[in-house]
Amino acid sequence: MRIDIITCLPKLLESFFAHSILQRAQQGGYVDVVVHDLRDYTADKHRRVDDYPFGGGAGMVMQIQPIATCIRALQAERTYDEIIYMTPDGERLNQKTTNSLSLRQNLIILCGHYKGVDERVRELFITKEISIGDYVLSGGELAACVLSDAIIRLLPGVLNDETSALTDSFQDNLLAPPVYTRPAEFEGLRVPDILLSGHEAKIDEWRYEQALTRTRTRRPDLLEE
Amino acid sequence: MRIDIITCLPKLLESFFAHSILQRAQQGGYVDVVVHDLRDYTADKHRRVDDYPFGGGAGMVMQIQPIATCIRALQAERTYDEIIYMTPDGERLNQKTTNSLSLRQNLIILCGHYKGVDERVRELFITKEISIGDYVLSGGELAACVLSDAIIRLLPGVLNDETSALTDSFQDNLLAPPVYTRPAEFEGLRVPDILLSGHEAKIDEWRYEQALTRTRTRRPDLLEE
Repeated sequence: MRIDIITCLPKLLESFFAHSILQRAQQGGYVDVVVHDLRDYTADKHRRVDDYPFGGGAGMVMQIQPIATCIRALQAERTYDEIIYMTPDGERLNQKTTNSLSLRQNLIILCGHYKGVDERVRELFITKEISIGDYVLSGGELAACVLSDAIIRLLPGVLNDETSALTDSFQDNLLAPPVYTRPAEFEGLRVPDILLSGHEAKIDEWRYEQALTRTRTRRPDLLEE
Repeated sequence: MRIDIITCLPKLLESFFAHSILQRAQQGGYVDVVVHDLRDYTADKHRRVDDYPFGGGAGMVMQIQPIATCIRALQAERTYDEIIYMTPDGERLNQKTTNSLSLRQNLIILCGHYKGVDERVRELFITKEISIGDYVLSGGELAACVLSDAIIRLLPGVLNDETSALTDSFQDNLLAPPVYTRPAEFEGLRVPDILLSGHEAKIDEWRYEQALTRTRTRRPDLLEE
């Protein structure tokens, strides 16, 4: 899989892709993440990529020219399955979308910044608009990291223990059950006896019950889907 | 405001807090973000902070001892308004929660990693559990960045143009209207005439109508709140 991220703040993304599973996934050849600095594509001699909004008002708007040039340069090299724009008014990301995107070959992720991109960018190029949640960030860079991380960890071979992703929250519309590790007692708080019993079938049953109870209490909406 | 972030992967957060508005906010004295490496608080001679789950199963669990030691060391220095745990089964973050957290003085954000933290950490220390959305990430570090960014940009003085945050999506339960910038025509696509009219009242009206239409089409649920 290849992910091209287009941003006006490439440095923001550096440490994220240089560590943890994102680094391992790239070194292992499971994914190729390429970050593109929008300023390399602007025709403006001062390397500006934003301008004032037509009609006035607060905030700056990202111009269409550098984005169009960058996307077309990428499209000349390969075919993209989706050109995704990270925006708070996009469709809300969930595990289902993440699973389906993890099966794609080539993705472009465009990070909005300031007040967002010129609307014509969305009309001309974008095939999918994604929001990571109902809150506003200072830019789409973090959102692009979130989306990339959620996708990349699902690629076969990336996680050390593949069954680990399958037992995560949301994969079966259930929240995960509580987990415990050593010591068995900490300041009087003991691990539930069942987990120390060694009785595998009973432990599985207990975990399922706990996951169900937790989902009912915290997120009953998940059970209705 | 002070935000203490506890993580087993501090390097993952580096470039994020060293750039953009997060850097400006810290340099301007609006916020003090301190990242703590959990490994500095473990009593284990190999500096481990995780262990196998009781009862078996995939994935590792973060131990209570290093977390307890770190949180107590911080609490000895100052009083915290909230000790937040980033977890997919927490309450879903929205702009309302973000606004309210931006009024606090001292926050601790604990990043989960691997399969999450020992359940007793949540019982003993955590006052608020937050999820940034219905998807699973490889760790809470990105989620902590998302939460910090969403909060910090709301602190008075952090954004260059304060009215900018007030016209964002969600602040009035409406999505933002489309924005445009130069050129007025790009490959035959023109900016809506109204935005070039200079008629401020009509532009405001158009923007409100657009925001309403966009919200009705994309997120009717926001209008019911």
